[in-house]
Amino acid sequence: MNHLQDVPLAKAYLLLNHGPSTLVTSEHDGVANVMAAAWVMPLDFDPPKLMLVLDRNTWSRHLVEGSGAFVIQLPSRRQAELTLTVGSNNGGEMDKFARFDIAQGRARKIAAPIVEGCLAYLECKVIAEPHNQDKYDLFIAEVVAAYADERAFSNGRWHFPDDELRTIHYQAGGAFFATGEAFQVSRG
Amino acid sequence: MNHLQDVPLAKAYLLLNHGPSTLVTSEHDGVANVMAAAWVMPLDFDPPKLMLVLDRNTWSRHLVEGSGAFVIQLPSRRQAELTLTVGSNNGGEMDKFARFDIAQGRARKIAAPIVEGCLAYLECKVIAEPHNQDKYDLFIAEVVAAYADERAFSNGRWHFPDDELRTIHYQAGGAFFATGEAFQVSRG
Repeated sequence: MNHLQDVPLAKAYLLLNHGPSTLVTSEHDGVANVMAAAWVMPLDFDPPKLMLVLDRNTWSRHLVEGSGAFVIQLPSRRQAELTLTVGSNNGGEMDKFARFDIAQGRARKIAAPIVEGCLAYLECKVIAEPHNQDKYDLFIAEVVAAYADERAFSNGRWHFPDDELRTIHYQAGGAFFATGEAFQVSRG
Repeated sequence: MNHLQDVPLAKAYLLLNHGPSTLVTSEHDGVANVMAAAWVMPLDFDPPKLMLVLDRNTWSRHLVEGSGAFVIQLPSRRQAELTLTVGSNNGGEMDKFARFDIAQGRARKIAAPIVEGCLAYLECKVIAEPHNQDKYDLFIAEVVAAYADERAFSNGRWHFPDDELRTIHYQAGGAFFATGEAFQVSRG
């Protein structure tokens, strides 16, 4: 069953505002890849932009430079092992989708696969900034489509229904945090 | 009692890898300010760099452009109301430290105040990138000093001793998440 619901572009930053770890998918010349990325964050609200640090030694870098597009997706806790696994292997040496039997779909507005079962998706087109890309491995992109699992995100807010459907935050060495307790404060 | 312990610069990115919300302090010509920022993330490992999105309409933008320096600090859950409060008021109209009775200390390697009682501190010097600053409100900086509350961070890992000393992740409208349960996975 498909729980994905469109997120208005002006609210897409709310998917990333709490700093979750992500998976990045991309495709160029018929070759696709998926990698893990913790260094992703919003840059602007509307039209939404985000930033991704994409090391020059990754296979995805080659694909993203070729296609000018990528998808940021937010894995749930139940996908944490998958996240670590795709983050620990080089797509230049294998087809990770096949090797790790990853269920995939297709992005809507760009040519790239998506990993099925994630909590949210942000489809992105790169805004060419050669200096940032060359000097800092930094990619700036516009978000052109966003959708999320309505069980976990609706009306601009995350509200995780159970522990398996929480977003995750990578630490290091296979250690993650789940997104934790929600709480509300008022201004002093 | 002071629980702050130096964090080796090569491990400073681990303070931010899980995407917590931050407070930013800065000072120029004897005028200081503190603001909240969720859009902060690592950019490089060693020497460590980070990025901060700093809107052109903030008072801190004026100070950081003047001084070329700022401190990123990670508030604990017990400082969430403070975080919302300083994020909801304009430093050009008041001295927030005085108005909200915020206990402050001094940074070690740059000229700026720090907010007492935070879980970690990253002192930063701006790397001038006028195009990024003008077009995207994006500041790139080198981390020149890092230290953390040893009760919550040591040996390169966060290990929150109790719920009040967890880092926090801002959603919107006064809603936060605490950093949640730690878990470990192995590669598939």
